[in-house]
Amino acid sequence: MAKPVQVTVSSPTNIAVIKYWGKRDAKANTPINSSVSITINQRDLRTVTTVTASKEFSKDRLWLNGTEESVADNKRVLAVFREVRARAGDRVDSTTGEVAVKAADWASMRVYVVSANNFPTAAGLASSAAGYAALAHALGELMCYTGSLDELSAVARQGSGSACRSLHGGFVAWDMGAKADGTDSMARQVAPAEHWPELDVLILVVSDAKKTVSSTSGMDTSIKTSKLLAHRAASVVPERMVRMEAAYLARDFAAFAELAMADSNQFHSTCLDTYPPIFYMNDVSRAVIQVVHAFNSACGETRAGYTFDAGPNAVLLTRKEHTAQLLAAVLAFFPPSAEAEAGFVNDAALRAQAAKAGQPAGLPALLAKMAPLKGLVKKVYHTDVGPGAHPLDDAESLATPNGLPHAPPPPPAGATWGIQLAWALGLGYPLACIGGALMGK
Amino acid sequence: MAKPVQVTVSSPTNIAVIKYWGKRDAKANTPINSSVSITINQRDLRTVTTVTASKEFSKDRLWLNGTEESVADNKRVLAVFREVRARAGDRVDSTTGEVAVKAADWASMRVYVVSANNFPTAAGLASSAAGYAALAHALGELMCYTGSLDELSAVARQGSGSACRSLHGGFVAWDMGAKADGTDSMARQVAPAEHWPELDVLILVVSDAKKTVSSTSGMDTSIKTSKLLAHRAASVVPERMVRMEAAYLARDFAAFAELAMADSNQFHSTCLDTYPPIFYMNDVSRAVIQVVHAFNSACGETRAGYTFDAGPNAVLLTRKEHTAQLLAAVLAFFPPSAEAEAGFVNDAALRAQAAKAGQPAGLPALLAKMAPLKGLVKKVYHTDVGPGAHPLDDAESLATPNGLPHAPPPPPAGATWGIQLAWALGLGYPLACIGGALMGK
Repeated sequence: MAKPVQVTVSSPTNIAVIKYWGKRDAKANTPINSSVSITINQRDLRTVTTVTASKEFSKDRLWLNGTEESVADNKRVLAVFREVRARAGDRVDSTTGEVAVKAADWASMRVYVVSANNFPTAAGLASSAAGYAALAHALGELMCYTGSLDELSAVARQGSGSACRSLHGGFVAWDMGAKADGTDSMARQVAPAEHWPELDVLILVVSDAKKTVSSTSGMDTSIKTSKLLAHRAASVVPERMVRMEAAYLARDFAAFAELAMADSNQFHSTCLDTYPPIFYMNDVSRAVIQVVHAFNSACGETRAGYTFDAGPNAVLLTRKEHTAQLLAAVLAFFPPSAEAEAGFVNDAALRAQAAKAGQPAGLPALLAKMAPLKGLVKKVYHTDVGPGAHPLDDAESLATPNGLPHAPPPPPAGATWGIQLAWALGLGYPLACIGGALMGK
Repeated sequence: MAKPVQVTVSSPTNIAVIKYWGKRDAKANTPINSSVSITINQRDLRTVTTVTASKEFSKDRLWLNGTEESVADNKRVLAVFREVRARAGDRVDSTTGEVAVKAADWASMRVYVVSANNFPTAAGLASSAAGYAALAHALGELMCYTGSLDELSAVARQGSGSACRSLHGGFVAWDMGAKADGTDSMARQVAPAEHWPELDVLILVVSDAKKTVSSTSGMDTSIKTSKLLAHRAASVVPERMVRMEAAYLARDFAAFAELAMADSNQFHSTCLDTYPPIFYMNDVSRAVIQVVHAFNSACGETRAGYTFDAGPNAVLLTRKEHTAQLLAAVLAFFPPSAEAEAGFVNDAALRAQAAKAGQPAGLPALLAKMAPLKGLVKKVYHTDVGPGAHPLDDAESLATPNGLPHAPPPPPAGATWGIQLAWALGLGYPLACIGGALMGK
């Protein structure tokens, strides 16, 4: 009996700075406009996926965050399996140099998938992007996908549109394409993260409640009812794509951030123009926007930007020389509740720098009428731009050699009651799998 | 010495259901698109203005809500004065039948203006619309303006754009016009209030705080920065104007309310597409929107609509047969604080009917996740559609025969400490002038 073959990969999420909203074709999962994103460093937020193939398996199976989900009922997952299998290659054993699995044999081998995120699902951070990018990349690595990484991104796109942008690192454009079958609707790396290492990111978690309107259903309603969305796609985005790529390549922070802010607001304005209207931002999101504009006014230049996906969480953009000052402003206007105080910022060193740097001198006067909103930002993640999906060592596998998920380990020694509760609720598995990436940088 | 001549008028506010946002020409105060509104009944909310002319007066003077304001420094007020004087007519004394003031003499007579609102200034209800409509109408009555009411509306427009719609009652279109000087940018009555007496209105006062961005400066920024506003004005509004007028004339409530909701949302979406973005609605406004859509779902038909001007207050539209049911839903999801309980709804009889009618049976289940937002709606006004600006009897004059504001009367017997404080702060004057219009219907 042949030994099962196993691959583990890690995939990042990404944050669009020119937004994708609206499908051109639901089946092909193609967009009505191109978009462009930064890939978030996997040190902080990532999906890990282990895939195991064996001739002994009778069907494809999937465990997501410790719970088994149906593969047969999930059209998106099925599409990714189908597309990777269609272009599978010979798998060579790296130690023996011999062909372990022939290209033609993948069709008869079933796969077990074990996947876990380390960020709240469906809270406005694109966990589905990281998840489908990880799935496509893991299956691609396993089955020695014969296409290019850009072509593999078109496979990930069929799982979740924005997932195509997570295969690459750095600054990534998703060109909408023109073909009906979507084969030219794929991601392209504009520049790697190393091109602009100064770019920095603070993610403010405003709420981890489930979204009331999913992206897919929201887009569908917007396409049908918004009178502004088609105009945005046809007449506004193309010109913005050109300017945004140019700003990134030129490392022109003011142009980059101002365009990101305008495009985030325009995306949310098309949601509001939908009938019934869709609201992803709340009063806390709006207060964050107000603080960022006032921060820039106080600094006399654009040192910060923001972008919001389909949820209330804010993604703040800045340059590393200004991150501490920006964090100081965030802490002044959005102080943590007493319970959230410990570990409120995932980067203790940065928090110490922020205390030293202080907020810009003129900012309190500009926001004299705004009382601090205590406890309404729940967590601040400091991160930056990073690489795309990539394989991990076997030591980071989420599965046994037979492809089944590892049993959850016991909670860490000295765990707080909150962590113990998470374990009791069955959340210990994904938390432990991720290996404490959130505990420190 | 000739006796001063005095006229007192009352003017309503109006609520646009196809919104005006953006000036074509700042000097002429012409809009980038046509708009259409309902005129709010003056029983509930109005501006009263008394104008007194005398050859003895050395300059034009203006008292607004008890405080004297400069006329010479107010270009909008000056424009209204100038335009009415330019087309003044002979004033005939109604008792003697003789010409009291010749048309040519108005140029040498100065005018004292005393004006008072009975609703919070700049809180998102169009107090400036009522104010400038009252000023134009009062001066027009005083000086026997020789143009038509539509032409007088173009004079009011130079004070405040939306003021032109308050001269007429019922359902009023403001046609944007084409001329550079704005003389064809005027209001036209589509139908009087009597055409559709079933139409009913609930105004939910969400906050009476001052707006952070005035309409004039907001529009200016939107025109300069929004990529969606010009598209709305050119390609969306013209078709909506036609459909909205047809819906009103046909008394088609569902078409009327659905278009009003969509257009309110689109107006706010162009504000959000402005850079920096402008937010007039807050989380309470959004909760009201959610309740209205759920209310309609629970009823199986569109029985309620909403529209929001440049502020967080909600104007709910319904038919009189459904007002009690709608109010019951409002009271269920937005109960008053203990302090606001007394007089929370200005119409005690309707509140009793609402208690009897109850909210729609299916509504609580649809909004099971929404906890009641206690105390966040501060006041509910029940009103409906009414007539335009019109003269009042001398008994309602706000001024002495010599044109000076009446001294504030003492606070009413048994006044609460809040009312006493208002008097102490000098607010007693407008409150008393209005004659307690808010106390009951």
